[in-house]
Amino acid sequence: MDITQYMQTLGQQAREASRHLARARTAEKNRALEAIASALLREKSTLVAANEVDLAAARAAGLEAALLDRLTLSAKGVASMAEGVAQVAQLPDPVGEISDLKFRPSGIQVGRMRVPLGVIGIIYEARPNVTADAAALCLKSGNAAILRGGSEAIQSNQAIARCVREGLEVASLPASAVQVVETTDRAAVGELITMREFVDVIVPRGGKGLIARLLQEARVPMIQHLDGNCHIYLEASADREKALNIVENAKTQRYGTCNTAESLLVDRAVAACLLPEVCALLTAKGVEIRGCGETCRLVPNAKPATEEDFATEYLAPVISVKVVAGLDEAIAHINRYSSHHTEAIVSENHSAAMRFLREVDSSSVMVNASTRFADGFEYGLGAEIGISTDKLHARGPVGLEGLTSQKWVVLGNGNVRS
Amino acid sequence: MDITQYMQTLGQQAREASRHLARARTAEKNRALEAIASALLREKSTLVAANEVDLAAARAAGLEAALLDRLTLSAKGVASMAEGVAQVAQLPDPVGEISDLKFRPSGIQVGRMRVPLGVIGIIYEARPNVTADAAALCLKSGNAAILRGGSEAIQSNQAIARCVREGLEVASLPASAVQVVETTDRAAVGELITMREFVDVIVPRGGKGLIARLLQEARVPMIQHLDGNCHIYLEASADREKALNIVENAKTQRYGTCNTAESLLVDRAVAACLLPEVCALLTAKGVEIRGCGETCRLVPNAKPATEEDFATEYLAPVISVKVVAGLDEAIAHINRYSSHHTEAIVSENHSAAMRFLREVDSSSVMVNASTRFADGFEYGLGAEIGISTDKLHARGPVGLEGLTSQKWVVLGNGNVRS
Repeated sequence: MDITQYMQTLGQQAREASRHLARARTAEKNRALEAIASALLREKSTLVAANEVDLAAARAAGLEAALLDRLTLSAKGVASMAEGVAQVAQLPDPVGEISDLKFRPSGIQVGRMRVPLGVIGIIYEARPNVTADAAALCLKSGNAAILRGGSEAIQSNQAIARCVREGLEVASLPASAVQVVETTDRAAVGELITMREFVDVIVPRGGKGLIARLLQEARVPMIQHLDGNCHIYLEASADREKALNIVENAKTQRYGTCNTAESLLVDRAVAACLLPEVCALLTAKGVEIRGCGETCRLVPNAKPATEEDFATEYLAPVISVKVVAGLDEAIAHINRYSSHHTEAIVSENHSAAMRFLREVDSSSVMVNASTRFADGFEYGLGAEIGISTDKLHARGPVGLEGLTSQKWVVLGNGNVRS
Repeated sequence: MDITQYMQTLGQQAREASRHLARARTAEKNRALEAIASALLREKSTLVAANEVDLAAARAAGLEAALLDRLTLSAKGVASMAEGVAQVAQLPDPVGEISDLKFRPSGIQVGRMRVPLGVIGIIYEARPNVTADAAALCLKSGNAAILRGGSEAIQSNQAIARCVREGLEVASLPASAVQVVETTDRAAVGELITMREFVDVIVPRGGKGLIARLLQEARVPMIQHLDGNCHIYLEASADREKALNIVENAKTQRYGTCNTAESLLVDRAVAACLLPEVCALLTAKGVEIRGCGETCRLVPNAKPATEEDFATEYLAPVISVKVVAGLDEAIAHINRYSSHHTEAIVSENHSAAMRFLREVDSSSVMVNASTRFADGFEYGLGAEIGISTDKLHARGPVGLEGLTSQKWVVLGNGNVRS
């Protein structure tokens, strides 16, 4: 197989389909989504059987348990995948929305129209549910998609792709509006991320290794998601109960999510009274404390934290803890060590809260709320394709709107420039 | 001089300064802008003298007339540059603006805060006025800037940089908030476009050669501006007078601007009655007509257009003309040949106008208005750093808002996720 030729063909087809999709009516797109959801439900046993083939190969290849878990598609998983696709049909269609249409002194009316980005390339790990999610979000936002999932999920992804294609055909939309790369050859990724003429943006949903490769090799712009080294800062005026609840929720509700807190900063003025209690609560939940010198003096079971600890996203029951002199040191520490994902302050002081919101350079900044809220559903986006830690285009959770941009529209009546 | 070390130092200083600028008050930024404008006016003769040195060297090197013209900084030019900087002080400050703050079912309030991008690298040709413009826009939007102008303008740019530095000092803002690269070594550009840790976005304002190089080598995201192959489509229901006025204005008001019309499409139904008159008007203004077969039959003085003509931004008194079967062919032609800058339809038919707005994939789409309106001032942005033909982040004229992005803010009262 000539990978370059194969990917160029996918690219050309996607570009063609994107022009069609950009002008598709909302009802057509919704009809396709509903038909995809139905097909997924109807083909439940086929999908589970295809997934069994992937799982058997993955087990034989010695894939580790966590990855096998993500690869697994149960009958219940298929149902929830179909439900997700059907929900996207219910979301408002962002495409074509015109905003801020205003008259200018020259007599023209100037506004902005929301339009699809065009062709979106999505590169992700061996998680079959992402195939359906990503297809649904790209379709609803009027974008053509080229999906390249982890090679271990190839059979599952192909089976899902057949359901997606059926749904597109039911709605008379082009079948190449959503294309799943059919080869597991890694060269296909190299082509996908450099076909500037056919691909408008790459959304990588994978580990650090993938992102590092893309940063070196990609020629197509990316909406990237790096890690989530999220902080909570207990400011001097923090309410004791809010502090305990927020730290507990942000650290222990789920250990493996990117919006889980990984580092705790405590104002020196309240460290002696707050820190032992907060750490006792975490310890009781099985969380290991790695603290600065002052933390270790206040919390007997804390281990000394290294410089590296403060820069680490553990994704595990471990937290780094540091006592700071005040707001300035907290903000400086966060801006230095954070991955610019999500940070929260616990404080009753209005000025401190406002400064934290303004000066912390992360995609989500919070006052008296758990970092776990950083999520497309919680923010009201309805769904998310990922969480961007980039600064251009979209920061934080990316929903349908993040898969569009705005062009300018000018309405005149024969106006010319003087 | 170790270029890598030198650029890394500029980058580190810019990153430091950007944190300071991001939290600077509007009054401080405006004070700096006003002080820069005053310094430019006061140093008028020094600036003109520095520019004379650049001009003498450029003439000796045989620089062509158009480039010498752009390089020239007259006393009047300095005054208008200072006026431009003072005007930026009058624009509203976008930084810190919170929008769409809404309660969610969980009880948290979620909104978005407009924030600077951080450090902006601007690469431009030997046009000294860009140094002051770019410095002012970056400063007002809370971004640190690293400016790398064409080497022929090095003395002029250094002299302007001294005025900028003075203004920053008057307002007690860090002098490294705006840094002008002091070496003409091209390796400096290579460093600037790859220092991801210190530079958040590159704005290239130069020719195709520069953009082509950046597309290959840049590792920092770009807001790029490609050429403006702008179209006017005279639809079947076009009003004769509007058609004549708009074509005349869009093609002949200025030949060298990126929003000048370069290609004219005419519906076959009205070609025989409209095209001879439109072309006679253009010919009378000295514009060369390069037309398709039908155009050449209707317009005796038209030369035959090649395929390449339809893809060309002439920036000269030349226009390509094509007769099309209708709206579908017009849209398909534009989406194929256009550089996605600006296109206009002349039509009295509402449905045709709405389809054109929606389906033409360009950064500005217009109904019954001259393409020459595609401009930050005409759109009400107050000023522009350039016109983006990219799809991500900003499309079309980029003003202060385009130099910012939005982060999420969450206000709670001890809320945790359930």
